[in-house]
Amino acid sequence: MIALLQRVNKASVEVGGETISEIGKGILIFLGIDKKDSKKDVEYLADKVVNLRIFEDNNSKMNLSIKDVGGEIMVVSEFTLAGDCKKGNRPSFDKAMPPEEAEKLYRDFIDSLRSKGIPVKEGVFRSFMHVSLINEGPVTFILNTR
Amino acid sequence: MIALLQRVNKASVEVGGETISEIGKGILIFLGIDKKDSKKDVEYLADKVVNLRIFEDNNSKMNLSIKDVGGEIMVVSEFTLAGDCKKGNRPSFDKAMPPEEAEKLYRDFIDSLRSKGIPVKEGVFRSFMHVSLINEGPVTFILNTR
Repeated sequence: MIALLQRVNKASVEVGGETISEIGKGILIFLGIDKKDSKKDVEYLADKVVNLRIFEDNNSKMNLSIKDVGGEIMVVSEFTLAGDCKKGNRPSFDKAMPPEEAEKLYRDFIDSLRSKGIPVKEGVFRSFMHVSLINEGPVTFILNTR
Repeated sequence: MIALLQRVNKASVEVGGETISEIGKGILIFLGIDKKDSKKDVEYLADKVVNLRIFEDNNSKMNLSIKDVGGEIMVVSEFTLAGDCKKGNRPSFDKAMPPEEAEKLYRDFIDSLRSKGIPVKEGVFRSFMHVSLINEGPVTFILNTR
């Protein structure tokens, strides 16, 4: 399972020209789910995301977690993160979990974050979305359980 | 070397409240450089980026490259991509190449893309930047030469 974290001062999701969810200061997470993933991957990532120190303290040191700064999280499904670009010029998505199964783990991830007291917004699973964001830093991390 | 590709319909970089560069339809690339990287990694990634088919054709199939659609590229340095978050809650940047050496490879990457006929804009190396983008899809790929 891959969580791509972008530290944002705002992010929003638009579907069909309509803004359906938005956050202020926090983390935009694109979530890519692999065929071999399970609840164990969900729990590992949710715990890591909530505690990772990627926000600046008063000395501009990356020292604070999203809990410390009272930030929000936006979770958007992103199967292309499971894409393999090694062979040729057309990405292969063989490793990606089929959407019907992936949606369950996507929802488990959101629920797990919420259970840790973080306000979480989300995109629309399997929809064509425009995701707007301002990456502050920029600060971007790739968390991969494989 | 890690290139994080986000397919965008626009992206811009702001430093100190001033927009210093912007692109329309194309790819925003965050570039993370590892201590072990060399020109070989630069060439592999530049070639892959220019030819990767991640843009939609008239049948909405991901079938066209950035060359095919006449898109632009924005390259922004992002050392946090080389960050290791496996141990504890504070990312380790031991794998990241020191900035003095990394800047050379960052510029080689930009030059290589330009030599392939792609219009390339860039951020400001080692500056605090606000990177705004609209990720269309969303479509996001991680290319890693390690």
